[in-house]
Amino acid sequence: MTTVAERQVGQLSDEDVARLDAWWRADNYLTIGQIYLQANPLLRRPLEPGDIKPRLLGHWGTSPGLSFIYAHVSRLIRLTGQQAIYLAGPGHGGPALVAAGYLEGTYSEIYPAVSLDEPGMLRLFRQFSSPGGIPSHVSVTTPGSIHEGGELGYVLVHAFGSVMDNPDLISVAVVGDGEAETGPLEGSWKGISFLNPVHDGAVLPILHLNGAKIAGPTVLGRKDPAEVRSLLEGHGYEVLEVSGDDLPGMHHRFAATLADAWGRIREIQRSAREGDWDGARPRWPMIILRSPKGWTGPAEVDGVKVTGTWRSHQVPLSGVKENPEHLAILERWMRSYRPEELFDEQGAPVALIRELAPEGDLRMSASPHANGGRVTRDLDLPDFRGYAVDVAAPGTQRAESTRRLGELLRDVYRDNPDRFRLFCPDETNSNRLGAVFEASDRAFAERVSAEDVAISRDGRVMEVLSEHNCHGWLEGYNLTGRHGMFATYEAFAMVSASQTVQHGKWLQEAKRLAWRAKVPSLNVLLTSTAWRNDHNGFSHQGPGLIQVVLTQRGDVARVYLPPDANCLLSVADHCLRSRSYINLIVIDKQPQLQYLDMDAAVEHCARGAGVWSWAGTDDGSTDPDIVLACAGDIVTMETVAAAQILRERLPKFRVRVVNVVDLMTLPRRKDHPHGMSETLFTELFTDTVDVVFAFHGYPGAIHQLVHGRPDADRFRVRGFVEEGTTTTPFDMTVRNGVSRYHLVMDAINNAKRLPPGAAELKAWCERKLAEHQAYVVEHLEDMPEVRDWSL
Amino acid sequence: MTTVAERQVGQLSDEDVARLDAWWRADNYLTIGQIYLQANPLLRRPLEPGDIKPRLLGHWGTSPGLSFIYAHVSRLIRLTGQQAIYLAGPGHGGPALVAAGYLEGTYSEIYPAVSLDEPGMLRLFRQFSSPGGIPSHVSVTTPGSIHEGGELGYVLVHAFGSVMDNPDLISVAVVGDGEAETGPLEGSWKGISFLNPVHDGAVLPILHLNGAKIAGPTVLGRKDPAEVRSLLEGHGYEVLEVSGDDLPGMHHRFAATLADAWGRIREIQRSAREGDWDGARPRWPMIILRSPKGWTGPAEVDGVKVTGTWRSHQVPLSGVKENPEHLAILERWMRSYRPEELFDEQGAPVALIRELAPEGDLRMSASPHANGGRVTRDLDLPDFRGYAVDVAAPGTQRAESTRRLGELLRDVYRDNPDRFRLFCPDETNSNRLGAVFEASDRAFAERVSAEDVAISRDGRVMEVLSEHNCHGWLEGYNLTGRHGMFATYEAFAMVSASQTVQHGKWLQEAKRLAWRAKVPSLNVLLTSTAWRNDHNGFSHQGPGLIQVVLTQRGDVARVYLPPDANCLLSVADHCLRSRSYINLIVIDKQPQLQYLDMDAAVEHCARGAGVWSWAGTDDGSTDPDIVLACAGDIVTMETVAAAQILRERLPKFRVRVVNVVDLMTLPRRKDHPHGMSETLFTELFTDTVDVVFAFHGYPGAIHQLVHGRPDADRFRVRGFVEEGTTTTPFDMTVRNGVSRYHLVMDAINNAKRLPPGAAELKAWCERKLAEHQAYVVEHLEDMPEVRDWSL
Repeated sequence: MTTVAERQVGQLSDEDVARLDAWWRADNYLTIGQIYLQANPLLRRPLEPGDIKPRLLGHWGTSPGLSFIYAHVSRLIRLTGQQAIYLAGPGHGGPALVAAGYLEGTYSEIYPAVSLDEPGMLRLFRQFSSPGGIPSHVSVTTPGSIHEGGELGYVLVHAFGSVMDNPDLISVAVVGDGEAETGPLEGSWKGISFLNPVHDGAVLPILHLNGAKIAGPTVLGRKDPAEVRSLLEGHGYEVLEVSGDDLPGMHHRFAATLADAWGRIREIQRSAREGDWDGARPRWPMIILRSPKGWTGPAEVDGVKVTGTWRSHQVPLSGVKENPEHLAILERWMRSYRPEELFDEQGAPVALIRELAPEGDLRMSASPHANGGRVTRDLDLPDFRGYAVDVAAPGTQRAESTRRLGELLRDVYRDNPDRFRLFCPDETNSNRLGAVFEASDRAFAERVSAEDVAISRDGRVMEVLSEHNCHGWLEGYNLTGRHGMFATYEAFAMVSASQTVQHGKWLQEAKRLAWRAKVPSLNVLLTSTAWRNDHNGFSHQGPGLIQVVLTQRGDVARVYLPPDANCLLSVADHCLRSRSYINLIVIDKQPQLQYLDMDAAVEHCARGAGVWSWAGTDDGSTDPDIVLACAGDIVTMETVAAAQILRERLPKFRVRVVNVVDLMTLPRRKDHPHGMSETLFTELFTDTVDVVFAFHGYPGAIHQLVHGRPDADRFRVRGFVEEGTTTTPFDMTVRNGVSRYHLVMDAINNAKRLPPGAAELKAWCERKLAEHQAYVVEHLEDMPEVRDWSL
Repeated sequence: MTTVAERQVGQLSDEDVARLDAWWRADNYLTIGQIYLQANPLLRRPLEPGDIKPRLLGHWGTSPGLSFIYAHVSRLIRLTGQQAIYLAGPGHGGPALVAAGYLEGTYSEIYPAVSLDEPGMLRLFRQFSSPGGIPSHVSVTTPGSIHEGGELGYVLVHAFGSVMDNPDLISVAVVGDGEAETGPLEGSWKGISFLNPVHDGAVLPILHLNGAKIAGPTVLGRKDPAEVRSLLEGHGYEVLEVSGDDLPGMHHRFAATLADAWGRIREIQRSAREGDWDGARPRWPMIILRSPKGWTGPAEVDGVKVTGTWRSHQVPLSGVKENPEHLAILERWMRSYRPEELFDEQGAPVALIRELAPEGDLRMSASPHANGGRVTRDLDLPDFRGYAVDVAAPGTQRAESTRRLGELLRDVYRDNPDRFRLFCPDETNSNRLGAVFEASDRAFAERVSAEDVAISRDGRVMEVLSEHNCHGWLEGYNLTGRHGMFATYEAFAMVSASQTVQHGKWLQEAKRLAWRAKVPSLNVLLTSTAWRNDHNGFSHQGPGLIQVVLTQRGDVARVYLPPDANCLLSVADHCLRSRSYINLIVIDKQPQLQYLDMDAAVEHCARGAGVWSWAGTDDGSTDPDIVLACAGDIVTMETVAAAQILRERLPKFRVRVVNVVDLMTLPRRKDHPHGMSETLFTELFTDTVDVVFAFHGYPGAIHQLVHGRPDADRFRVRGFVEEGTTTTPFDMTVRNGVSRYHLVMDAINNAKRLPPGAAELKAWCERKLAEHQAYVVEHLEDMPEVRDWSL
């Protein structure tokens, strides 16, 4: 069924062609200008060597394809009022997207110095890839972008995240054939297996095959087209194809195909939303566009073919300043777009061009969806205190801390049906967050069977066995103004570590741009941690993501290690309210000791670190003999146990126990905004007493964080030192030297003052460890019940 | 064309079925025994609660499928003499693979205590997932494995790497349908687009669809089978399918299908090797096996369906010790395999079972290919000194250091045509390693065009725009005994960081097993570094992988930062000769200053760190006023420049310059075997003078490495602090505060003794930085030629 609107979009009058062609020529012209020119932007005189930039940077090859698509989608928006955003997988085609925002007027609105006239155009050219200017990729500075496309692979995950619970949005996602080779991209076509046509919007993937990467061919560009079609049909798409380089033929064919795709999307959505749907996964359309790399560029340079080959990937003409022949080619090339027809006397785009673009917020470069802070609504959050564990006395009872968080998240789902999602690689139940299923099923668009539990096409809990999809979907969801959490096994958070890094870079840069409104934070819950993956073994034991997040700037990086359920609730509430951070929350899912009642937890989390006087023997009147510090649930248990051993067996030994929830309180304030004052640091850690620090992660993290603190050398850190296997939880602490017995011996070894009995206690600890070792060695012959190694 | 051997493999006599069935029952029995039993291994008396382990761990669901396939491949090997190894993507099916090695006798050969009798079987059961025992996954301890399958996604990349230049090997790679959802796995089907049927072996992927993950359905398990077929045909495979749970029907159908697949592989190889090939990419076979999850397990438990559902993923019967009904189900289940027919009086497998397995090294559990150190031949390496840059005086000329490495690698290719490959995401030329193309083309099995350069189906340089493929292929290549290097943009090494972590874990554990012969090291060259991705911008600027490798144990982690070409050559030679390390080599590709002639470079690299007396003003007779230390090419240039400024402008200021090539010389020897002695450390860094350390990576890395060294607080580290964009190289050093001017000011600020003129010099540096800042700010208005910020 072809609708009127679809027919209108699909058929081009001569005037339509003229508008599209003018807009496209203008974008291409501005793209080349950005790469080459530092003067004479409108070519009002012959090109001279002095007009050419001293350093030629940028990527031409993908750009004309990107702007060709942009022009056609703009026309569709203008005709239909469709809300759309544009994600450029080949983000190195930055100049084409910058030019698009400039032609739409958005660029000048945001950056008034880059005005719609000759001086503004010159500035547009000069700023590109220049010190003090803008990056060469589609970046945070590019209006309309939620996707940089620097590190390749994530355009579809970002696109799918952007349309979840965003029913009126279509995200046009251009996939380059280089990017299409990456694992994350190949793993992301399956987004449609999780999309709901009623409450979600749609992604229109456009696989742009131009056949080459930097220096060689691409797999999809060189495969038999029948195979490529088969591949994408196998992913579940209706594959539409457009090929060629003939003009205006390509305009006509692409317009018709785009109209077809849009019509199919609308029909899928209409039938689903009007109750006229059998529930089967729709066959969403996607487009394969085959056009030459560097399309409309110089066909040959120095007798060698350029357009249509890898040679046009970056700067197809080099040495233009020095080589008159190349300069002449550049001038002919730029004049082939007939700039005098495209820009008026002042240098502004002529009416023909302006008429193509939609208006106001419908311009893709101005869409509020791509500046998600503008449309972010805070979560309606229940009082987290209502999910508290009753703690009568510290360290006397166990609870699964994440289960309480699951109950909180269940109610967040209930109260925010349009703006909160949990993303998790098939471990929601395993991570004890299963209460969310009382409020929402898992989303699944493929066939559901009778044995499935809490799975339906209407679900909004996202489970896919792909950290890349989970992380990327959440990024797209966040950047379009919605809230969420990515919960994963701690070790496998490293699978998507590079996404955490790149999203952190995005947030860091966005903070420097006033026009970019702050977006919901990326909340990452690491559970099933190294210490309690005793049952899964060494591959599942790795606290590496903390180390990664510590490399990010202080205005973005947040790391929390709540020791128990009430602290977790307090931290989670804080994170769900925050904006534009990477919040890393690390806590295990197994039953664990609970320490603080809710009031104490709230106070402790607000300070970020504090003395647990009930655990130690330090009365605060003078410096203790040793400080036992800890950050992380399991090592906190060991620390509290060590303090108890010392309290019972060396009662005159003054031990102070310090727990750290917010890891970023440790560095100096000049290194991180959460850094505690030197006064507070000294109050907690003294400035001379040795600190035995039991840390959840790699010990080096603490060494780097306390650098610059008074006498940092006195920090003796124990943590995860890459010792693990399938064993008992307690054995994990012994293997890594962070058991209660190790901590007691450390305390004795490093205290400046020792009461009588210390040597005996050390010997007792050594015996305890020897007993444990004997237990492990003899275990195969004599398997006792698993011992209770709890406090 | 069906060969005799193929017919023989494809047709089962009743005796064949009996053997297969017995072997499979035995493996399943042993699998369940490992999960449940601590006594009564042969069920020679009724099962009692005391026979049951106190903690039930392990994964049943995937195991029967894994052993079913194993049995059939073993039969094929026995009949044909085919060399094969087995990679279990669902590595959590560990007990099935352990049982296979046990049935083949390999396990007892390696671990004599786990003998082929009742006590040995009991030990087999007890050791599984127990303290002092073995991990629950296919792991380093599992004979025949080169793939753990803990972190999912890499089974096909490992398999493809294992068969490159291994023409007689078939790697059978079982892909679970959970794993099939990951990005890295989806990106790895394309391995056949890079495989050569003449000089490479073959991968036989078996996609094992049992429909469920831990707690829910899988995408491929629930898609229309026609879509799954379309998807895999789109990747280029000949898709063969086997479905069902009927017996012996499944045996007959799988044997026929396996024979078909094997026959197709042999025919592809035969025709290619006998010159009877048109050069088109072969349509390699793969098998889709659909069988119930937990096949042959209890159909229902407590009235709920288990077999065929996600409920059989781990331990399908819980609480067996306490629940008599469950205990009874377990006993019935185990007895359903008729153990009395499978094991003789002593508890050894009966002849019927032993007859199925191949003999000696043909057993998949004993294949030398899966213990690659056994077949590793050292590289035939040219003398690296022959590629030296002539350095007349330090810091007076520039060269592209990696270009020299490329020349060395070219000759490594020439001299080792069967055991060396370079893996690189389409950047071999960009990284200045293009000389290798004089010795070998890029490998590409898809269509090649006239514009392609150095690309052919016979090539052996591996370029694919996927870090996951590059890294994983190299792992597979290394673990089967061959040598290589993964060269990539520094920032995007984080894409595959998780693979680096997991491979490091493999190597760490392998070092503890005497029977695992050491394999070639995983060499990772990070080039196009943060400091010189000034043209690509912030997304391309991130030295994160150093931080990741630093978390690994000292017996595996190596990090080298050669400052120039001759040091790079010396380091590369060392790495290519080494075994079982992760060697990280970090150096940029751009023209850079050269410091050391070859003799000096060799000596410097052998020590790992040393004083560059020519750069400083320190005569060694007494402690200097300041130590300027550096690690990394660009920061070394800034340090040398800072020292020169100090030398010229404050000649009486005693400056010592220390360069560090081997980062692991910095920690104490107890923390890393390369750690320098305290004497040497003090000789270089003194024990009281402040050290201004300019580091290539994040500053925290140095803080953690020098922890415990004399007065570590005196190290003032500058490095990459997440400041970047598209700009000039020098501006990158200014933004991150590590420019020569910053270093001079640091030196002045931290020296204990200052000569006259220091304040003026500081003011001069501040002016220089202000000038630079003005240059950046005014750049858009007044674009001068890019300044030469070199020394």
